[in-house]
Amino acid sequence: MRPGIENKPGEAMEKVAVLGLGLIGGSFALALRREGLARHVAGFDADPQTTRRAKERGVITHTCATPEEAVQEADLVVLATPVLAMRELLEGIAPALKRGALVTDTASTKAQVVAWAETLLPQHVAFVGGHPMAGREHSGIDAAQADLFEGSVYCLARAQHTSPAALAALVEIVERLGAHPYMLDAEQHDRLVAGVSHLPFVLSCALVQALGRAQEWPEMARLAASGYRDMSRLAAGSPAMYRDICLTNREAILGWLDALEAQLQTFRSHIAVNDEALKDYFAQAKHVRDTVVPRRS
Amino acid sequence: MRPGIENKPGEAMEKVAVLGLGLIGGSFALALRREGLARHVAGFDADPQTTRRAKERGVITHTCATPEEAVQEADLVVLATPVLAMRELLEGIAPALKRGALVTDTASTKAQVVAWAETLLPQHVAFVGGHPMAGREHSGIDAAQADLFEGSVYCLARAQHTSPAALAALVEIVERLGAHPYMLDAEQHDRLVAGVSHLPFVLSCALVQALGRAQEWPEMARLAASGYRDMSRLAAGSPAMYRDICLTNREAILGWLDALEAQLQTFRSHIAVNDEALKDYFAQAKHVRDTVVPRRS
Repeated sequence: MRPGIENKPGEAMEKVAVLGLGLIGGSFALALRREGLARHVAGFDADPQTTRRAKERGVITHTCATPEEAVQEADLVVLATPVLAMRELLEGIAPALKRGALVTDTASTKAQVVAWAETLLPQHVAFVGGHPMAGREHSGIDAAQADLFEGSVYCLARAQHTSPAALAALVEIVERLGAHPYMLDAEQHDRLVAGVSHLPFVLSCALVQALGRAQEWPEMARLAASGYRDMSRLAAGSPAMYRDICLTNREAILGWLDALEAQLQTFRSHIAVNDEALKDYFAQAKHVRDTVVPRRS
Repeated sequence: MRPGIENKPGEAMEKVAVLGLGLIGGSFALALRREGLARHVAGFDADPQTTRRAKERGVITHTCATPEEAVQEADLVVLATPVLAMRELLEGIAPALKRGALVTDTASTKAQVVAWAETLLPQHVAFVGGHPMAGREHSGIDAAQADLFEGSVYCLARAQHTSPAALAALVEIVERLGAHPYMLDAEQHDRLVAGVSHLPFVLSCALVQALGRAQEWPEMARLAASGYRDMSRLAAGSPAMYRDICLTNREAILGWLDALEAQLQTFRSHIAVNDEALKDYFAQAKHVRDTVVPRRS
C-alpha cells in the first residue's frame, strides 16, 4: 500500500498531525507551514497548556485533546515526544491511522523506535524513523523556529517494510525543511550518535555536577567565561529526553564513555611526566577539531 | 617607589610595551589604543612575522626586535606569552625596565608567574598579575579585537610587594578595557580556574581524541551538530598554552579531574539500575547550569 502522501509531490498535504510540541515538534510544524506543505496541522501535547500555546503562536492550526483525535485522517504523523513515550503512543494511535498515512518520529535513538513501529503499526501505513541533528540550548514550544533544521543533517532509518516511495516522500519533506537527508540503518545510527551526540551531553552534565557540588562553586561561578559556557550548554537540555536516550542506547554510550576515560588516563600519564607529549596530545585534538567543520558552525 | 603611571590618572601613557602578540596581547593593545591610553605601543613577538603583522593591523605603533628593546622607557609592560615563556622573559627584561614601570601579565595561572616576578624583577618596578577571563575560538594576532574584554571578569593578583597605588593603576586600566577587575590571591585563583576553565579544555580535548581515534570517526563526523561543536570548541585552542597551563597548575587540575571521574562513575551506576535517579542526575545538572549566568552568554 502506497501512502496517500506520495500522490501529490510538492503539493500541500491536507492534514499533518504533530504529537509532542516541544522544540523539535514545534519547529517541524512551523517549517511545514512556512513551506505551504500542510493545510491543517493538528497538534497534541501531554501538557494541555503547551498545546494551547502552540495554537496561540500559530505553530498548529488545531488543538487536539488526544493523540488519537490528532491523527484522524492525517496524511503525515510526526512523533516528537521523548523516546520512552513513543511505545504507548504508537500503540494508541495505531487503530486511528488513515490507510496510507506516513508516520515518522524525531527521537535521538532509532533502533528501539523502529522496532516498536514494526510491531505496533498496521501494515497499511508506512513508517520511516527520523532524527534531525539540530538543537538549541533552549527547549519547549517557545523556542521553536521554522529555520531550526536549515543546513543540518537529518538522519532517516527505514523500518523492515518501508517502501521506497514512503522513504522518497519523507526525503522530499526533509529537503523542504532545509535539511540534508542522510540514510543509515537504525543500529548504525545509534552507535554513531552515542559518540558524537550522547557522550557530549553526558560529559557536559558530569562537568556541571563535578563543579557545582564543590564547596568553592559560588566563587568559581563568578569566573565562568566562554569555556565553561560552551562546555555546560548541553547540561541545560531536557532531563527526561536525556534519560530516555540513555535508557534506549545504554551499551553504545557506555562504550564511548570507556574510550573517553581511557583518554583521561592518557592525559594523566602525560601531565605526570613529559611536557612534549602533553603538547602533542593537545595538538592532535586541535588537528581533529580543525578538520571537522560541523555544518552549522 | 610609586610607578610613574600613577601620576597621571586618565591620561595617556607615553609608552606601553606588549610582549607576545597573540589574541590576548593584541586585543589588550587594541583596547589601550581605542581608549587613548597609550601614545606609543611597542610590540615584540617571538615570531617576527607576527610582530610585523601587528604593526600592519595597527595593533602596535612600533615593532621591536627584542623584548629588552620593547620595554625601554615603557610606563606599562604587558606579558602576554604562554606561561612557561615568562620566566626567561622576566629575567631578560628586568635590567631594561624603567624606574617606576608597572609590569603585568595575562597568563591563565598566577602562582608561578607571581613567584617569578617576586624573584626576578627589581624593587623599583611594580608587578600585578592579571588574567582576563575572555577568549575566542580563534587565536593569533588576526583574531585580536579591541572589545575582547568587554563585560568579562579580569582577575588581578598582587605580588608580595605590590603597592596599593600600582594595583589601583592597573584596576583603572582594566576598567577602561571594559572588564570587571576581580582581586584574589594567586593560589586561590589557580584552584578556581583549574575547575571552571582548565578542566573544561582538558575534557574537550579528551572528547575530541576519544572520538577522533575511533574507526567510525569519518562517519560520525558527518553527524556532528551543535552538541559536538560546543563541546569540541576548546580543543581548537593553542596546544602550547594548554601545556603550559597544565604544567603550572598540575595538582589543582588533577584534583578536579578526580571529581569529574567520580561523577562519571555516578552516571554509570544510575544508567545501570534506575531511570528516576538518571533523570534526577540530569535535572540537577540543568538546575546548576540554569542558575549560572556567565557574564558573556
